[in-house]
Amino acid sequence: MRAVDIIRKKRDGGRLDAAEIAWMVHGIASGEVPDYQWSALLMAIVLNDMDASETAQLTDAMMRSGSILDLSNLEAPKVDKHSTGGVGDKTSLILAPIAAAAGLCVPMVSGRGLGHTGGTLDKLESIPGFRVDLDLSEARSVLERLGLVMIGQTAELAPADRFLYALRDATATVESIPLIAASILSKKLAEGIDALVLDVKTGDGAFLPQLEDSRQLARAMCNIGASLGKAVSALISSMEQPLGNAVGNSLEVAECLEVLRGRGPSDLIELSLELTAEMLVLGKQARSREEGLAISQRSIDDGCALERFRRLIEAQGGDPRVVDEPDRLPTAEHAVEIRARRSGIVSRVAARAIGHATMLIGAGRSRVDSRIDPAAGVVLLRKVGDEVEENEPLCRILYNRSTHLAEARELIANAFSIADQVPSPSPLIVERLGSNEERT
Amino acid sequence: MRAVDIIRKKRDGGRLDAAEIAWMVHGIASGEVPDYQWSALLMAIVLNDMDASETAQLTDAMMRSGSILDLSNLEAPKVDKHSTGGVGDKTSLILAPIAAAAGLCVPMVSGRGLGHTGGTLDKLESIPGFRVDLDLSEARSVLERLGLVMIGQTAELAPADRFLYALRDATATVESIPLIAASILSKKLAEGIDALVLDVKTGDGAFLPQLEDSRQLARAMCNIGASLGKAVSALISSMEQPLGNAVGNSLEVAECLEVLRGRGPSDLIELSLELTAEMLVLGKQARSREEGLAISQRSIDDGCALERFRRLIEAQGGDPRVVDEPDRLPTAEHAVEIRARRSGIVSRVAARAIGHATMLIGAGRSRVDSRIDPAAGVVLLRKVGDEVEENEPLCRILYNRSTHLAEARELIANAFSIADQVPSPSPLIVERLGSNEERT
Repeated sequence: MRAVDIIRKKRDGGRLDAAEIAWMVHGIASGEVPDYQWSALLMAIVLNDMDASETAQLTDAMMRSGSILDLSNLEAPKVDKHSTGGVGDKTSLILAPIAAAAGLCVPMVSGRGLGHTGGTLDKLESIPGFRVDLDLSEARSVLERLGLVMIGQTAELAPADRFLYALRDATATVESIPLIAASILSKKLAEGIDALVLDVKTGDGAFLPQLEDSRQLARAMCNIGASLGKAVSALISSMEQPLGNAVGNSLEVAECLEVLRGRGPSDLIELSLELTAEMLVLGKQARSREEGLAISQRSIDDGCALERFRRLIEAQGGDPRVVDEPDRLPTAEHAVEIRARRSGIVSRVAARAIGHATMLIGAGRSRVDSRIDPAAGVVLLRKVGDEVEENEPLCRILYNRSTHLAEARELIANAFSIADQVPSPSPLIVERLGSNEERT
Repeated sequence: MRAVDIIRKKRDGGRLDAAEIAWMVHGIASGEVPDYQWSALLMAIVLNDMDASETAQLTDAMMRSGSILDLSNLEAPKVDKHSTGGVGDKTSLILAPIAAAAGLCVPMVSGRGLGHTGGTLDKLESIPGFRVDLDLSEARSVLERLGLVMIGQTAELAPADRFLYALRDATATVESIPLIAASILSKKLAEGIDALVLDVKTGDGAFLPQLEDSRQLARAMCNIGASLGKAVSALISSMEQPLGNAVGNSLEVAECLEVLRGRGPSDLIELSLELTAEMLVLGKQARSREEGLAISQRSIDDGCALERFRRLIEAQGGDPRVVDEPDRLPTAEHAVEIRARRSGIVSRVAARAIGHATMLIGAGRSRVDSRIDPAAGVVLLRKVGDEVEENEPLCRILYNRSTHLAEARELIANAFSIADQVPSPSPLIVERLGSNEERT
């Protein structure tokens, strides 16, 4: 087999077969396929697309490029959740303890924030002492004891994805549904899971803002699951405004603790419980979404979920006292409020601008090597549909570095729109898709 | 400027501006643009095309990536010819001496053969002692004395083209009219010429067999010339059957000597004189094609062109006695004839198959590092339109290595078609194009 022939086939709009795809992916590690050939193929894929079967074969080959966790000695169904990323999107810290408390095994490998979106690892690391860099044997031990573990991507899992992602980033070949889907699923399926629930964001703050793109990505990933014999379903959820009220790492951890105590913002509760219910259904711990919701609510009400989170923090080296004393989380030195310019009803809180502003004050990364400030962030005091009087506060900015504060304030002020009328309500969960079929 | 933004622009169908193109080409040498970014851009260009102005800017940037010969101290108009490559295509050895004898300066930088097509350098090197690797100062000295020099590509001229060509070859991005046009013209214009005549082949043995592709390539190159202030015109000539009767290096040199003595096959004479006439018109040594043809014919008739070729051979280290004693050229040990299976009129002599067969017996290269046999080749005894009786010879195969002889014989036998009717004559010169305008 020759890379140049495979590239030519895709260049001319052909369909690559499983052997060709496997050979190209294998060639990354073997050195038979240099990066300059892969980047030409990536561009040909971006411009000429891949069908469902090619996408599944690419995912499978990338998943097999490294170790696949063998969790077969664990009896519990292995189910994970993946989000395409958003602003204030912190459901992992809520649903993983609930799902584990409800009998699932959740081997969660997450990423860091970049640009306007946050990352689970950054949020966890705002807990003093918390280690996300467990090696696979440490992670397995935590998983066996607690039914969950939350770590970062390791060199062993899907190394081809890291190579290809870096190459895509440098060659303007990120924006391709098949490549995005294969990247996400290859990493997640290398966790050795049986089932996966996807939270595909749509709207202003989403990686893919257009609903049709989100739908295509969700469908592509469900199809991959079906092809590879994994139960994969997707919720498409709105990322028009930030999820919950807190945006910024320690602020988001504190908000998750609130939800695990049965309090907290309603949108965050709703999405977290819906995702958990879906995980429980796929993992056969609930017969229906309704039962899944009830089980999830119960593990919040009886404190089991919060307790599971406390034990996770302890097991991964963090200070478990933050659970009862959230003041032990890093706090910012300064605060400033953004106030309403007029009275009315909040009609828009643009997620991307809020996310970008929190990045500017240090809560996120403009580059992969940026250092973040775990305490910085924004707390929304009004969200879409809320009434506000002129000069009342809309949100509070918490910061230590004031370098880009003025720019952040301006962005945030402009992120809010206030209208006379109550906006027509838009659903938080826009669509649900199961493997190979839509389920409203 | 960032390569990824430039790649994204072309990926999305945008038009690159002169600064972006210059920066990308400069980045090859400066190391700012690694090969994997260039290969992604190349694929985006293949699939999304470049317009005439982008193509001219790419050519200009590639030309400027190395030295440009400064021939301004030479008074004679500097005019060269370039062919897109064919089988038995040996016009350079005829037209360069004629053009020099008629007052032009011809600084010809040529290539080697690959696959079914031959190369000028290989033909010249079949002359004992002939050196094509003169350095630029030696070349300039020959050019000043004789008005012509024939050398190989040097490291100094258009180095970006060598880098990009190797990358295109490995990434299935060769087949793009703008990239082909820029590659050819950047090298040729780095010769410091005022004008260039292109021989764009079309038909079976051509690099681009389809007339519409040949036409597009010719037009693209004429447009580049117009944009960069150089007189560029093109003849589109038929490569359905080999040009002349000889295919193979020393055999072709001998045939060129015949033409320079006023003998030789009519198609080779016609194309050589038409190309020379066009060079003389562009170089203002003739007012019309007819005058150019007359001047060319005169320099054959009075022996000036042959004498110029003899002096060139001597100046470049070759044995000038081959001019009067062609037996001094390498000759093959063995010969075998292919005979007609039936009587009739030859209706086809497929150029590509003949070229491929001569490569198999050692006259050409299957890989860039193959060693060639200067004596091997084929002499056609019948061409399209000729009558033949059953069992009369159609051609003679001359060879030293018999490794692939059987395969070559079969290819050649099948390359000939014999019909009952005289085929409808097809013109050797299919079209003529001038800078930015077709000229019948």
